Amino acid sequence: MPDQPSTAPRISRLRALLRRSSVEAFLILDLKNIRYLTGFSGSDGALLVGAGKPVLLVDGRYTTQAAKQAPGARVVLYSDKASGIADALSAGGYGQVGFEPSVMTVEFLGALRRKAKGVRWKPLPSELGSIRAVKDPAEIEHIRKAIRIATGALKSTLVSIRPGVCELDIAIELEYGMRQRGAEAPSFDTIIASGPNSALPHARPGRRKIRPGDFVVVDYGAVSSGYHSDETCTFVVGQAGKRHKKLYALVKEAHDRALETARPGAFCRDVDAAARAVIEKAGYGPRFSHGTGHGLGLDIHEAPRLSALSEAVLEEGMVITIEPGIYLPGLCGIRIEVTALVEKGGVRVLTEFSKELQEIG
Amino acid sequence: MPDQPSTAPRISRLRALLRRSSVEAFLILDLKNIRYLTGFSGSDGALLVGAGKPVLLVDGRYTTQAAKQAPGARVVLYSDKASGIADALSAGGYGQVGFEPSVMTVEFLGALRRKAKGVRWKPLPSELGSIRAVKDPAEIEHIRKAIRIATGALKSTLVSIRPGVCELDIAIELEYGMRQRGAEAPSFDTIIASGPNSALPHARPGRRKIRPGDFVVVDYGAVSSGYHSDETCTFVVGQAGKRHKKLYALVKEAHDRALETARPGAFCRDVDAAARAVIEKAGYGPRFSHGTGHGLGLDIHEAPRLSALSEAVLEEGMVITIEPGIYLPGLCGIRIEVTALVEKGGVRVLTEFSKELQEIG
Repeated sequence: MPDQPSTAPRISRLRALLRRSSVEAFLILDLKNIRYLTGFSGSDGALLVGAGKPVLLVDGRYTTQAAKQAPGARVVLYSDKASGIADALSAGGYGQVGFEPSVMTVEFLGALRRKAKGVRWKPLPSELGSIRAVKDPAEIEHIRKAIRIATGALKSTLVSIRPGVCELDIAIELEYGMRQRGAEAPSFDTIIASGPNSALPHARPGRRKIRPGDFVVVDYGAVSSGYHSDETCTFVVGQAGKRHKKLYALVKEAHDRALETARPGAFCRDVDAAARAVIEKAGYGPRFSHGTGHGLGLDIHEAPRLSALSEAVLEEGMVITIEPGIYLPGLCGIRIEVTALVEKGGVRVLTEFSKELQEIG
Repeated sequence: MPDQPSTAPRISRLRALLRRSSVEAFLILDLKNIRYLTGFSGSDGALLVGAGKPVLLVDGRYTTQAAKQAPGARVVLYSDKASGIADALSAGGYGQVGFEPSVMTVEFLGALRRKAKGVRWKPLPSELGSIRAVKDPAEIEHIRKAIRIATGALKSTLVSIRPGVCELDIAIELEYGMRQRGAEAPSFDTIIASGPNSALPHARPGRRKIRPGDFVVVDYGAVSSGYHSDETCTFVVGQAGKRHKKLYALVKEAHDRALETARPGAFCRDVDAAARAVIEKAGYGPRFSHGTGHGLGLDIHEAPRLSALSEAVLEEGMVITIEPGIYLPGLCGIRIEVTALVEKGGVRVLTEFSKELQEIG
């Protein structure tokens, strides 16, 4: 699998959008979109896609790197970003230019208006947000590698999830283990939430020490080649009681129904509904306080969203999470999350770690 | 030293700016500014400062945390951020509202215009960017603590900077050491740049193994209570030769001249000029390719900037870095950086690690 596949098909899809949007060029400022469309992974830059070869604008730190990573683009150096973009627009003769309204700041658009006189600026159509939703084989391989790194680190950290060890120390070990195995970074701040803390979906690991009988929610992931993994395991410390087993089985059932519902052509809101119906039927509806999942790739959260309000439809090649949960304030919480690839007829779970209830510690 | 000092004086300074700006209220979206002005450290929210008690708007994840961290604000829950802000503006009867143009996106301003009909929006004056430049004693203590954490980790990692160990493994160890000592995160991606890589001011640590005779640039920092430390050491692996000593002494001389120039009332550009003059005189002017330093605090880079173009003047209580360097492409680079507090008559170096040339490995 080549590390840098040709980005030409991605640029072609953007150009198709260009033709439908009645603009002459797109100015891309989102760094993940720039990486997706060119291969360039630097921390600043701009991409102009119009007629002819795309123009990748970078500052002096990145000329060598950009030329190497983005052979499909013409690399242009700027000392002032807005001036560089204005010059490139002028050279291309573009009068009507689309931009990403969720990334463009009021200040930067003001600078562009001052420097690129006569250009009309138009927010890009919302479809651009979904341009990265369907993954190609190289992207899927990057996500698989991120998952392998994360899984290896969790397996070696499992021994630390035991009574007397505090949440934060487990999080630090797990992140260290991912870095040692090649992760560029954790996908996000690792969540280790034990006992009553597990009832907080966005808990931050703290000084609480693990105790026998705790549920411990581990929500974690690794970044590899820019791509994210995302997984949640909920463990029981010591022997699982009846209540542990019942709650876990309920979330697992919701999880499995959502997985069964996900396939090319399914509405994302129906996948959410499948998980939610199980939890509602058991009387815990209000205790499942977030969506059922999300796409992931160069960003940890990207299109599509799997929620009741989503209009999105699943397509072959999308990579999504399925992560229902139940949270009982002051008591405990359970979340079960896998990452899955949408493929012909259904989904393939990419996550490697078992989702059966595990007693640890 | 209290962990959460009163934020009332900070709000008062913002209000003074409000009176001079002919707006009735400020909408603050920058999360570091929100933390500075209220104490709230969540990952999303908005702050409205007008007449009466400031209004801190947060989503459902953060109502408890916000009430605890921000006693000086009235906490209001939103389910949709723009709608929540529109309601708060309407409740306050505000018609002319200032905002941060470098943070506000075109998309979000569009949503606010649609929901808060009749409000006139005005970019905040540029002075707002400097509101955090002068630190109070609690902030200085947070920075000192971040420095102590970072220094401890570097001291224990020093043994790993030896021939045969690769840059990336040293970076991973150093970041792990900072986390173990209480860092919330590294201040930025740690730079370990050895041999020819040290000639790149923004090098990323890679697989290159340390060799005898290398310069090794270590640029690193820790975050504690939200505050950043920032320091660069350049070591020689093995015995320093004449050339090592000559280049290091030159950068050290530039560094010391800048430190001597920095005092309350000095122009930041004069501090930059003091370092640059030493390096230019030795014929390396074009090899010092960045500014001499920057303020730091809740952000790793904040006001003031110490560069040739800066109009800023140093004030008592500012915390700045001094970091001249020389970079010889393909050969080597040296950078020496400390963090210093501007105080009566001069500066006090807060960085604890020696800046004399050290042979290691």
